[in-house]
Amino acid sequence: MSYKVSIIGLGLIGGSIALDLKRTGFATEIIGVDKSPQHEQEALKLGIIDKISSFSTAIQQSDIIILATPVDASLELLPSILKIINPNSVVTDVGSTKSSLIKKVKNCPNRQLYVASHPMSGTENSGPSAAIQNLFKDKVSIICNAEESSYKSIEIISDMYKALGSKIVFMDSESHDEHVGYVSHLSHAISYALAVAVLEKEKNDSAIFNLASGGFASTVRLAKSSVYMWLPIFIQNSKYLLPIINTYLDKLMEFKSYLENGDTKKLSEFITEANRIKGKLEKK
Amino acid sequence: MSYKVSIIGLGLIGGSIALDLKRTGFATEIIGVDKSPQHEQEALKLGIIDKISSFSTAIQQSDIIILATPVDASLELLPSILKIINPNSVVTDVGSTKSSLIKKVKNCPNRQLYVASHPMSGTENSGPSAAIQNLFKDKVSIICNAEESSYKSIEIISDMYKALGSKIVFMDSESHDEHVGYVSHLSHAISYALAVAVLEKEKNDSAIFNLASGGFASTVRLAKSSVYMWLPIFIQNSKYLLPIINTYLDKLMEFKSYLENGDTKKLSEFITEANRIKGKLEKK
Repeated sequence: MSYKVSIIGLGLIGGSIALDLKRTGFATEIIGVDKSPQHEQEALKLGIIDKISSFSTAIQQSDIIILATPVDASLELLPSILKIINPNSVVTDVGSTKSSLIKKVKNCPNRQLYVASHPMSGTENSGPSAAIQNLFKDKVSIICNAEESSYKSIEIISDMYKALGSKIVFMDSESHDEHVGYVSHLSHAISYALAVAVLEKEKNDSAIFNLASGGFASTVRLAKSSVYMWLPIFIQNSKYLLPIINTYLDKLMEFKSYLENGDTKKLSEFITEANRIKGKLEKK
Repeated sequence: MSYKVSIIGLGLIGGSIALDLKRTGFATEIIGVDKSPQHEQEALKLGIIDKISSFSTAIQQSDIIILATPVDASLELLPSILKIINPNSVVTDVGSTKSSLIKKVKNCPNRQLYVASHPMSGTENSGPSAAIQNLFKDKVSIICNAEESSYKSIEIISDMYKALGSKIVFMDSESHDEHVGYVSHLSHAISYALAVAVLEKEKNDSAIFNLASGGFASTVRLAKSSVYMWLPIFIQNSKYLLPIINTYLDKLMEFKSYLENGDTKKLSEFITEANRIKGKLEKK
């Protein structure tokens, strides 16, 4: 099957999905919508989308609508989409928080035409020019609360993620938000705080970054991520993220107290425990 | 000029230096010494070293001795090396902390034949098999307290780092330890704590790593680093590292309090400030 697809939000994620759906023939046509006319023109010029359209025309003309906006915008847009969507079409969103949006549309008309999903991939870059091919290949894409969507809607969105090369996992939205809090949102919070700490040091010490090497670059990479994308994710997931940050703070303070006390035995055990991460990521 | 070089400690750093010094013709012969006979055999088999020798024979037969052991072992070994080194030879160490070692050998005979250095590069892997070519190419290598070494010693070690493709920076050891605390040791502490926090979560939730994507992998990468290398670095640099960890904890708690209070304005400013890191690392 081949579909007419609208992408609402032509950033890194929306743009990367568009590139692969077109390339694999899953989409016959990609219609692009973005609140920034400049991003729309850029996406058109880069061949990410086939045409630009108004929001409502895009919804009415598409078999599949992919909402790839920041998660605060999705809260506003998804109810509007469900109001005007064709009964044979399906809409999905690709945001990093799922519970808020699912709650928001609980009683909307056509709820069953919506599939809550989250392809677990990305980079620290943003905008249409950040779009890359194969971003979701061999990555996990999560579908949340499948029981609230029609079988046909789930089938189409599953096929779409298969076309992107993703492995699909079903999950309830609360588990999703907690898990993603641990393995994605926490990493971003940690990295933003690292950047702010070192940038503060730089105010009196302009040479600080001369010594930055690969280790620092790796840990601070996520701090380059867009505030428009990440601020609303943190806000929407604060229920889970706050206790996770507390757990993390406890661990770092534990590390610090061993160092303060010169307790090499405990510090060694701490690092050795951390080293167990090695096998965990490689086994995936 | 071409030199006979001994490498004491055949891990990632020592091994990678050996590979490039041989390849570029800077070393005519590489003698390897490691406290692990298995590492010595492995390094020989991998072509990292030309021959294995005893510690004292290696010192006596070499023009250049490179101490590439964990920094606690270097504290023990450097004074022994300075006792038996030939007056025309030179010794350098490549550890990530410099003040402790420099203090330790302050009154040793032949102090002027020792150059304190630190090539700012690495990976999370360890052992001879982790050695790679061009690890130091286009990276910064620091020489500390140059005034305590003879001109000729500095010249030879500078030439060596040039052969590795490094850019050389001179620095006093206290500044070095503070700077490196910010842009390297802190990143490692943060990453170890992240690994421990998520591994603790895993105890009751075995699926947690199924959702880990590139962002988590990047932030937690350094947590794979060897305890033998990093424990003594943390201990030796605790004077600088502890206040830096406190600064970092303050920043993360600031982030947390904005999130707790739903203060989107402050949180947005925090993330926007963190985003400034983007230009900093690319300008290098």
